Amino acid sequence: MFPKNCWYVACTPDEFADQPLGRQICGERIAFYRDGAGKVAAVEDFCPHRGAPLSLGYIEDGQLVCGYHGLKMGRDGKTLSMPKQRVGGFPCVKSYPVEERYGFVWVWTGDAALANPDDIPQLHWAESPDWAYGGGLYHIACDYRLMIDNLMDLTHETYVHASSIGQKEIDEAPVKTRTVDGEVVTSRFMDNIQAPPFWQAALRANGLADDVPVDRWQICRFNPPSHVLIEVGVAHAGHGGYDAAPQHKANSIVVDFITPETETSHWYFWGMARNFKADDAALTDQIREGQGGIFAEDMEMLERQQRNLTEFPERKLLKLDIDAGGVQARRIIDKLLQQEQAASTQRIASVGV
Amino acid sequence: MFPKNCWYVACTPDEFADQPLGRQICGERIAFYRDGAGKVAAVEDFCPHRGAPLSLGYIEDGQLVCGYHGLKMGRDGKTLSMPKQRVGGFPCVKSYPVEERYGFVWVWTGDAALANPDDIPQLHWAESPDWAYGGGLYHIACDYRLMIDNLMDLTHETYVHASSIGQKEIDEAPVKTRTVDGEVVTSRFMDNIQAPPFWQAALRANGLADDVPVDRWQICRFNPPSHVLIEVGVAHAGHGGYDAAPQHKANSIVVDFITPETETSHWYFWGMARNFKADDAALTDQIREGQGGIFAEDMEMLERQQRNLTEFPERKLLKLDIDAGGVQARRIIDKLLQQEQAASTQRIASVGV
Amino acid sequence: MFPKNCWYVACTPDEFADQPLGRQICGERIAFYRDGAGKVAAVEDFCPHRGAPLSLGYIEDGQLVCGYHGLKMGRDGKTLSMPKQRVGGFPCVKSYPVEERYGFVWVWTGDAALANPDDIPQLHWAESPDWAYGGGLYHIACDYRLMIDNLMDLTHETYVHASSIGQKEIDEAPVKTRTVDGEVVTSRFMDNIQAPPFWQAALRANGLADDVPVDRWQICRFNPPSHVLIEVGVAHAGHGGYDAAPQHKANSIVVDFITPETETSHWYFWGMARNFKADDAALTDQIREGQGGIFAEDMEMLERQQRNLTEFPERKLLKLDIDAGGVQARRIIDKLLQQEQAASTQRIASVGV
Repeated sequence: MFPKNCWYVACTPDEFADQPLGRQICGERIAFYRDGAGKVAAVEDFCPHRGAPLSLGYIEDGQLVCGYHGLKMGRDGKTLSMPKQRVGGFPCVKSYPVEERYGFVWVWTGDAALANPDDIPQLHWAESPDWAYGGGLYHIACDYRLMIDNLMDLTHETYVHASSIGQKEIDEAPVKTRTVDGEVVTSRFMDNIQAPPFWQAALRANGLADDVPVDRWQICRFNPPSHVLIEVGVAHAGHGGYDAAPQHKANSIVVDFITPETETSHWYFWGMARNFKADDAALTDQIREGQGGIFAEDMEMLERQQRNLTEFPERKLLKLDIDAGGVQARRIIDKLLQQEQAASTQRIASVGV
Repeated sequence: MFPKNCWYVACTPDEFADQPLGRQICGERIAFYRDGAGKVAAVEDFCPHRGAPLSLGYIEDGQLVCGYHGLKMGRDGKTLSMPKQRVGGFPCVKSYPVEERYGFVWVWTGDAALANPDDIPQLHWAESPDWAYGGGLYHIACDYRLMIDNLMDLTHETYVHASSIGQKEIDEAPVKTRTVDGEVVTSRFMDNIQAPPFWQAALRANGLADDVPVDRWQICRFNPPSHVLIEVGVAHAGHGGYDAAPQHKANSIVVDFITPETETSHWYFWGMARNFKADDAALTDQIREGQGGIFAEDMEMLERQQRNLTEFPERKLLKLDIDAGGVQARRIIDKLLQQEQAASTQRIASVGV
Repeated sequence: MFPKNCWYVACTPDEFADQPLGRQICGERIAFYRDGAGKVAAVEDFCPHRGAPLSLGYIEDGQLVCGYHGLKMGRDGKTLSMPKQRVGGFPCVKSYPVEERYGFVWVWTGDAALANPDDIPQLHWAESPDWAYGGGLYHIACDYRLMIDNLMDLTHETYVHASSIGQKEIDEAPVKTRTVDGEVVTSRFMDNIQAPPFWQAALRANGLADDVPVDRWQICRFNPPSHVLIEVGVAHAGHGGYDAAPQHKANSIVVDFITPETETSHWYFWGMARNFKADDAALTDQIREGQGGIFAEDMEMLERQQRNLTEFPERKLLKLDIDAGGVQARRIIDKLLQQEQAASTQRIASVGV
């Protein structure tokens, strides 16, 4: 159950730097590559000749060549040529609207007529020299919505990430969730506490004392279909917390693009954007490594949660205040699904089927 | 097809010494742990909050804590607490009657109201200082009843275990099977034969000559739901065989607790109890290693037998005299299954459904 | 969808030199072994006693013994004996017509009454001292007909085997396909070209210059149910090509026996027969190694093609001129399937069912 008339993060350009990339997204098998004009292309990963995966092929003169019998596929899904063949009557395969932006490749898996690149979310930090970004990709065998739940309820940090970013005060601080203009925001503020190890290191990296009380904040923002950006940080206590001047704080944005593969698996693009020491590439690597380790701790929990839910499909889960972020996010997703279904029904009706 | 109103061996205490143990038994997913009073507990491996497996959690102050969001689960399946939450209305999960006895943890997977610890089989050798026990656990991908068949027909030793305990005389000796008071007993006596390698070593370990003729016996006892205890041994020939005085024989009890996991897989707790040189821990280890190797020889046969039976479900197998032990054991299991079904039907009828 | 009233290559004799071989062919689970008279036997891999796989047993005095309880199985599927048992009433298992010829074991998986060893294809090169043969076996997870398609359309060499036997001229040369007397022949002749690396090595091995223009040929011959033999070679240009005298050419026969295992997997017996330097065993090894590497390149393509076809069962594939070999081969296979079905219907009708 995923909306398809949406932009999803599909991959990063380095993944098809040397050869086409085959990846399943929202149930669609897609081959990604860069064409002769340097523009990313996305076509169905199915050669119309004999069904070979086009992603096993290669790029020649900027064109995608099937690695089985040399059919050349255009970025619009129409066959361009094939040795000694007339290809005019060859059936088309699907092509997908695709955009390269902010260091990611975004794909639209639904009705191409509705795709508007302006709907890709704006990521200010991805274009500013004041910010640095580092991240990675995990394949996780669970419904993408379990990951949204996970990220919209950070009380799990206390338990899953006890040795890095978790601390008792997260549980104890009240959480506030609201939906505004189609964005779900869950926020939690913890004043005058001890920074956990991850944030102590961040303070040190930012040239700040790590052994004084801090104000900590977490502001999770869900935007449909499935992106969660989390403003996180600590400031030396008494300097204004979230609003403290830069010289008193270490803060960043946890970036989570959650892209469905199948009903029970997804691609998880995780990362962190920070606006301190943006030029320090070694620090970027160090943070990426730390974050990669922390986020890997969620995987077993999420995958085994999925297995339990698959085994007991009739069980109703609880919806507590701490779950409000996930609950409200699912409400938005459900509305998108209903809209798509209604539009599909109307389309079928209007053509008299 | 396994009776559920029974005590099954679930695990050994060392398996949850450091953290909870998640194990599927008779189709039930169960988390085992030791509570604050030192008593083993067994609850459904499903957190009522979001379906996470409780066995991924930890023990704090003797209580099971979910590793995802900190819910504390009671041994009765009722939530004890959760940070900042009122848990009174939380749905219960199942809890299971469980007993620690004889070095094993016994679980009752059916109707808890019927569970009586007095029904756990009495194992005299497990409580006597004159006996030593060593064993292990195998997970085997076949119906637990194929393992019962295997153990109630030891002619397979001649073929599967030719180099250790097998010998031609097993095939040639007549086998006698009878059911007495709900116990199936299959016995075979082989007089004045050469001891096979395993028993030669046991004679030597017991300070006896290993190169003289012996009388050998095998008395397999099946008790429902799925335990097989086998009295085995050799005595120097002419001293009374099974009834010979201790100084003339080496004997032991092969211990087999066979616990269904799914319809086509089970947990096989195997071991050997002996009443000679009970203090010799090195000998216990040596026997365990030898037995572990021998019992591993059955695994491929049983798992491939299961695959054949799954592939050819319509084929009727033969029931020869040598198979009488397994056949009579299955008759008892079938009766238990019918009783459970009848009781279940009656219960449904009596509540007017 | 495979015809069963056919001879298929099942295995090579070395595969059951030490112990019986269990192999699934056309959906049949079969145990192969050599009996006391030195003759290959093939019986269902299912012991009538308890369903154990007979292939886990052993050969004693030329008879197949079940490794579980010692049942001795005859080559006709009738039980010969079992310790202390009367076996007259034991149910039979299937036995299969089987022949050892040309270094292969051929099995007939359908109606045994129709099996005639004279229908095994004649392989002149397998019996002549002027020829040498080397080959191997791959298990491939795709419909056997995708492998036939592959071998009957060698334009794929240009793409899949670019570094060894592929070259642009294959694509450019016209291909001719015809069906004559139930054999499909696809041929391609490329005159006055540069030999690709594999053939340069073959020329050198045959004592010929490798840097002069050659005439190259490929003549693929499909014979039902699923064998493809390919005459391949190069001759120094201007000496008559395919018809050139031996001292001007290097040529061989690519041997492909393609045996269905299930609907979506097969056993691929590949090899090469050559009639130059037939005594040079080192050369045979070297060619086998090279060919094994080349043919392994097809595996990922074929297995992923199968996954695409399984995912999109409704898609119609193209049938171009280059695909005519596969198309005509499938036409012959389809006719065999219809004949088998008609015969089966008639048989059922004639017995009044």
